[in-house]
Amino acid sequence: MIANADLKRYNKKSPYSYTLGMFPTFELLHKAPQTVEKVLLHSELTREIRDKVYKSCQEKNIEVIENNRIIEKIREKENCFLIGVFRKYTNELEHDLHHVVLVNPSDSGNLGTIIRTCVGFGIHNLAITQPGADLFNPKTIRASMGSVFHLNFHYYNSFEEYRQEFGEERDLYPFMLKGTAELGSIKPRLLPFSLIFGNEAMGLDDRFLEIGQSVLIPHSREIDSLNLSLAAGIAIYDFTHKYSLLGSSISTVKGEAS
Amino acid sequence: MIANADLKRYNKKSPYSYTLGMFPTFELLHKAPQTVEKVLLHSELTREIRDKVYKSCQEKNIEVIENNRIIEKIREKENCFLIGVFRKYTNELEHDLHHVVLVNPSDSGNLGTIIRTCVGFGIHNLAITQPGADLFNPKTIRASMGSVFHLNFHYYNSFEEYRQEFGEERDLYPFMLKGTAELGSIKPRLLPFSLIFGNEAMGLDDRFLEIGQSVLIPHSREIDSLNLSLAAGIAIYDFTHKYSLLGSSISTVKGEAS
Repeated sequence: MIANADLKRYNKKSPYSYTLGMFPTFELLHKAPQTVEKVLLHSELTREIRDKVYKSCQEKNIEVIENNRIIEKIREKENCFLIGVFRKYTNELEHDLHHVVLVNPSDSGNLGTIIRTCVGFGIHNLAITQPGADLFNPKTIRASMGSVFHLNFHYYNSFEEYRQEFGEERDLYPFMLKGTAELGSIKPRLLPFSLIFGNEAMGLDDRFLEIGQSVLIPHSREIDSLNLSLAAGIAIYDFTHKYSLLGSSISTVKGEAS
Repeated sequence: MIANADLKRYNKKSPYSYTLGMFPTFELLHKAPQTVEKVLLHSELTREIRDKVYKSCQEKNIEVIENNRIIEKIREKENCFLIGVFRKYTNELEHDLHHVVLVNPSDSGNLGTIIRTCVGFGIHNLAITQPGADLFNPKTIRASMGSVFHLNFHYYNSFEEYRQEFGEERDLYPFMLKGTAELGSIKPRLLPFSLIFGNEAMGLDDRFLEIGQSVLIPHSREIDSLNLSLAAGIAIYDFTHKYSLLGSSISTVKGEAS
């Protein structure tokens, strides 16, 4: 159990992270209550929300602390009056379901937006290769609108490590400016898919042309490339729509506290 | 002509704005040279880029000023060594081409990302209703990667004003959580289209259910909504793909300095 005196501004190396604000904190309490250490309330929080927090935490046997000073130390924006403190965790990815794979993503906001899009379109398994943006950075959690707690994720040291575990049993689709098939021409198949995206600045290197079926999202020569979270969002929409993923049975997150 | 002493950090009310950094400044010089007042160089700019700037500006008869102090006053990030100073302008939208309409967009970053996606998929006409984010905010220009100079845009006082000018001659598609047709079910038609998106926090109000054909991008109940720039990007990709817009003749920007 973390002591109140140890609650400081988020640090990547800490075993704890925070949900800053109402929306992600309620998602945390709802989807990953077993990871929650405590919930912090600010005196400016409305009566209605306060009652809702106490009710939810009582049911789950979670400690609630009213302490403006700690909140003001941790929060990044002035209008944050509710914080969830939780232990970081990791999951295993599901072998029989579709994945998104991010190779060295660098921006927390993009990562959170991509998570929100994955969950929105029924993809619940995310692989990230190192070095990669921190999924538990409160910025990522906020950009995901708390949907990060609906997802299995796992960090790999390299794409090879991911490929060794999952490459044989699924169709791999690296998205590249040099991709040899246009997104619109891809037909759904029987195996689960992995959609693979490169880093914001570099994309995927030519090595990926030899992996699975490389895919191009055609765009005009007036722009250099699409924004990463946009390219991923368009691909995820198109694939899940083709595979009629929404409406099919959607797996639940198996997250366990580590 | 603006005096050097008047060059200050960007202000929405100023008749001038700035491109901060190499990429947007070269887009400005390439696509809207008639609006450029001067170009500012920092002594830390590499020799190669400096030569390229001088060459481009000489051809276009644009003044180049080397002045670290002014750049350091204007720039928002330390690694910015090149700034374009230009007069704000406005365009008329083209009647016979497709439009994107943003109703009260509030975030400069989202606006820039949507512009980049529009241009990338061959849409060159953007309507924005007031109050709306500032297209000439350097943040918007940066998020657009300079593609804002490839686009016709116009601000309207209300959606009604836009509709009176364009509503009769085109198909209107408001995107809403209550939309009555799914994106995937929309078939291409003969008239040009307008894709209409609401504000980040509010979306479009129920009034828009009576306008044209309302459209839903289906997503799981695990998220409240898609991010605005994501929803717009998916819709723009899907429509331009259906209408086979890329590869067809693409209009050029008619921008004039105002």
